[in-house]
Amino acid sequence: MAERFALRKLARLGLVKNGYATGSNPLERRRRHLSSLEIREEARAFLQLHGEATGGTRSAFARRWADVRRSLSRSGHYEHTPDELAFGARLAWRNHARCIGRLFWESLEVADCRHATEPEAMAARIADHMTEALGDGRVRSIISVFAPIERQRFPAYVESQQITQYAGHAMADGSVLGDRQNVEATRIARSLGWRPPGDPTRFDLLPFLIRDAADRRALFSLPTGSVREIPILHPAHAALAEMALRWYAVPCVSGMILTIGGIDYPCAPFNGFYMCTEIASRNLVDVKRYNLLPDIARAFGLDPAPSGARLWRDTALTELNRAVLHSFRQAGVTMVDHHAASDQYMEFHRREQAQGRRVAADWRWIVPPQASSQCEVFHLRMRNFHPVPNYYYHRGDDGLQLMPWYGDRHRTRPERIVDRVTRRWKIWKRMAW
Amino acid sequence: MAERFALRKLARLGLVKNGYATGSNPLERRRRHLSSLEIREEARAFLQLHGEATGGTRSAFARRWADVRRSLSRSGHYEHTPDELAFGARLAWRNHARCIGRLFWESLEVADCRHATEPEAMAARIADHMTEALGDGRVRSIISVFAPIERQRFPAYVESQQITQYAGHAMADGSVLGDRQNVEATRIARSLGWRPPGDPTRFDLLPFLIRDAADRRALFSLPTGSVREIPILHPAHAALAEMALRWYAVPCVSGMILTIGGIDYPCAPFNGFYMCTEIASRNLVDVKRYNLLPDIARAFGLDPAPSGARLWRDTALTELNRAVLHSFRQAGVTMVDHHAASDQYMEFHRREQAQGRRVAADWRWIVPPQASSQCEVFHLRMRNFHPVPNYYYHRGDDGLQLMPWYGDRHRTRPERIVDRVTRRWKIWKRMAW
Repeated sequence: MAERFALRKLARLGLVKNGYATGSNPLERRRRHLSSLEIREEARAFLQLHGEATGGTRSAFARRWADVRRSLSRSGHYEHTPDELAFGARLAWRNHARCIGRLFWESLEVADCRHATEPEAMAARIADHMTEALGDGRVRSIISVFAPIERQRFPAYVESQQITQYAGHAMADGSVLGDRQNVEATRIARSLGWRPPGDPTRFDLLPFLIRDAADRRALFSLPTGSVREIPILHPAHAALAEMALRWYAVPCVSGMILTIGGIDYPCAPFNGFYMCTEIASRNLVDVKRYNLLPDIARAFGLDPAPSGARLWRDTALTELNRAVLHSFRQAGVTMVDHHAASDQYMEFHRREQAQGRRVAADWRWIVPPQASSQCEVFHLRMRNFHPVPNYYYHRGDDGLQLMPWYGDRHRTRPERIVDRVTRRWKIWKRMAW
Repeated sequence: MAERFALRKLARLGLVKNGYATGSNPLERRRRHLSSLEIREEARAFLQLHGEATGGTRSAFARRWADVRRSLSRSGHYEHTPDELAFGARLAWRNHARCIGRLFWESLEVADCRHATEPEAMAARIADHMTEALGDGRVRSIISVFAPIERQRFPAYVESQQITQYAGHAMADGSVLGDRQNVEATRIARSLGWRPPGDPTRFDLLPFLIRDAADRRALFSLPTGSVREIPILHPAHAALAEMALRWYAVPCVSGMILTIGGIDYPCAPFNGFYMCTEIASRNLVDVKRYNLLPDIARAFGLDPAPSGARLWRDTALTELNRAVLHSFRQAGVTMVDHHAASDQYMEFHRREQAQGRRVAADWRWIVPPQASSQCEVFHLRMRNFHPVPNYYYHRGDDGLQLMPWYGDRHRTRPERIVDRVTRRWKIWKRMAW
């Protein structure tokens, strides 16, 4: 009895068919499962937004919507025009509740790479992307959008979480050399034949992994010298240099699915630039990442094991942030500090409100993990209403509640009630309990 | 039309009766409005918890519940035994999602002061409470519970947010001397005849305000010398002493309503001890409080207006935390730093889980605003399911979703569905839209 329930649940989740496990493609488990009605709704809502933003006429929208509707009822799929794609990718950024840097959403450069479906061509484009993004150090925000999922046809996509990542070598004694977060990715890369260039170090760049349409994996490395890495030095504490810390200049997220108007783009790597706390208050010091704070504190001349309070942590964090900022500035690579990022977010918030739009935001992600209450965002009320278009990792997690949001328009009372109930109902259904 | 809608809404909220504004008593607007069915449910759930915790028999519970049920149907009210009251107040602490210091919930000392209904007697008890709590500096956590609300009969209660607070003097030039949060409380105190002992300073202790059953306000001061204040000194930066900063030793929250088993206690001042970030990362430096960070940074020899990043804020915050901790320790007054508090919370979390209970927690309130990601609580998943008994400020805010939580017991699938739907329905109804 309980077994049958479990099977039925797995079947609903698409993991079991006729009692057999399905879904060798992990994308199938991660993508949102939308009914054809939901796809229609998202497509219509998106085309309407696009029409309004580009100042299109009602009749232009009606024509386009008729086309799309026809295509949807014929094949369950439709194709975005390049213009829609670019608008959608930017909107997805504007809607992404976890990003503090959204002030610049309109300046996102969108590369339409839907024609590149072979892993080799994709890897070549990604290499170009990284070079363009870095430029002379003034990092530009770029997204390369590859082919979408067409009903059940899965295109090739990048399986790595980021294009540049440092390996995490599991050592014989159980310790980890490098980034703990990437131990599994490193294991996979090794099983596919990758080896670090010399002896394993803390900062070995991993190749990125592409999974093609036939579900085969292939490793690709960026051309030597195209990844800029910045050694972390402190302006006053020379001892930090001996630790030989460094970090790459351009973070390029490749593990998220871009969803626009009911169509999912599983391969849409995008880059921004770093905020100092990402490297100095998280990556290098989190217990589940590099966990280097005690060593770093020693390099700053602090005692990491005093009898009293552990405020040495606070001091070391601040100094490491200072070092990271200093190093990136010296290298001429774009980086923002958390106070400036907070100000930029407030400006974004004001501009959106002036446009009559509410901002979807997740307080836990927006507020920096350092001097939080001194950042204005700390004191801002935020609400995440999960609008689409957006970027997401997994339909059971940050993708669960994604759906069109009509709160910014004038809705009558009955409409609002219907919105609420529909919303609840959809989430309920998606949770498949 | 719209006006009629608005009036009807206000009537539903209990703010308007027959077209006239009601509720001169602000408590009426703040307390939760429960149906008699909801009161019964909360009473029953609470008595059950109490029975389980004290190892009572089923028949003892049945007898007690029969009594309470009878009393509820006769008068809509029932009286807690002293034992139930003590258990309820402790449980309310254990359930309070915003508190990081709940490890010590069982050690809360509960003073049953329900007999003290006159403002003078209440003020005398509160003065004793503060003295007992401070003791020789090792702060004890105490709560004094005064009379509950009986249906529509409102008892006297403390209107001030805390028993000890610093005044915020609105100056002629528009600036504020003291704590900006208390400008209104200071204005009210002045209108009732209070004057600071000398010229207004930054740290003038405000008297606390009691509103009696007939809705008259009276001011009460704690006896001279019974409030301990600690001058804030830095072990290394003597210049900080010139700023003459100080803070009181015992925070005693008096603005929250304690709700146990459907009965609301609007006057239940409780105290804990301070965590250093409350004073050093919020009270003294928040823009809406003392906003002293630039001055403090100067006292530490930092330049608060550099051209580059504003990391001087981070440094100054850390040093101020160090100073506050140092000063309290020197004075022999209990204080916890945020790293230790985080550890204590993790221990609380483990103990609760070991008991088979889930912990209601609000991430935004639990995570300290300083070196956040270095505190283990930052990485903990939390969920706030708003259980009762609890403490709350306002039924439209943190009191909105309070209701019994059955998730910790074994519930069958249909029961869980009913729980969910009931929950949604209650919140919906309370939002009175």
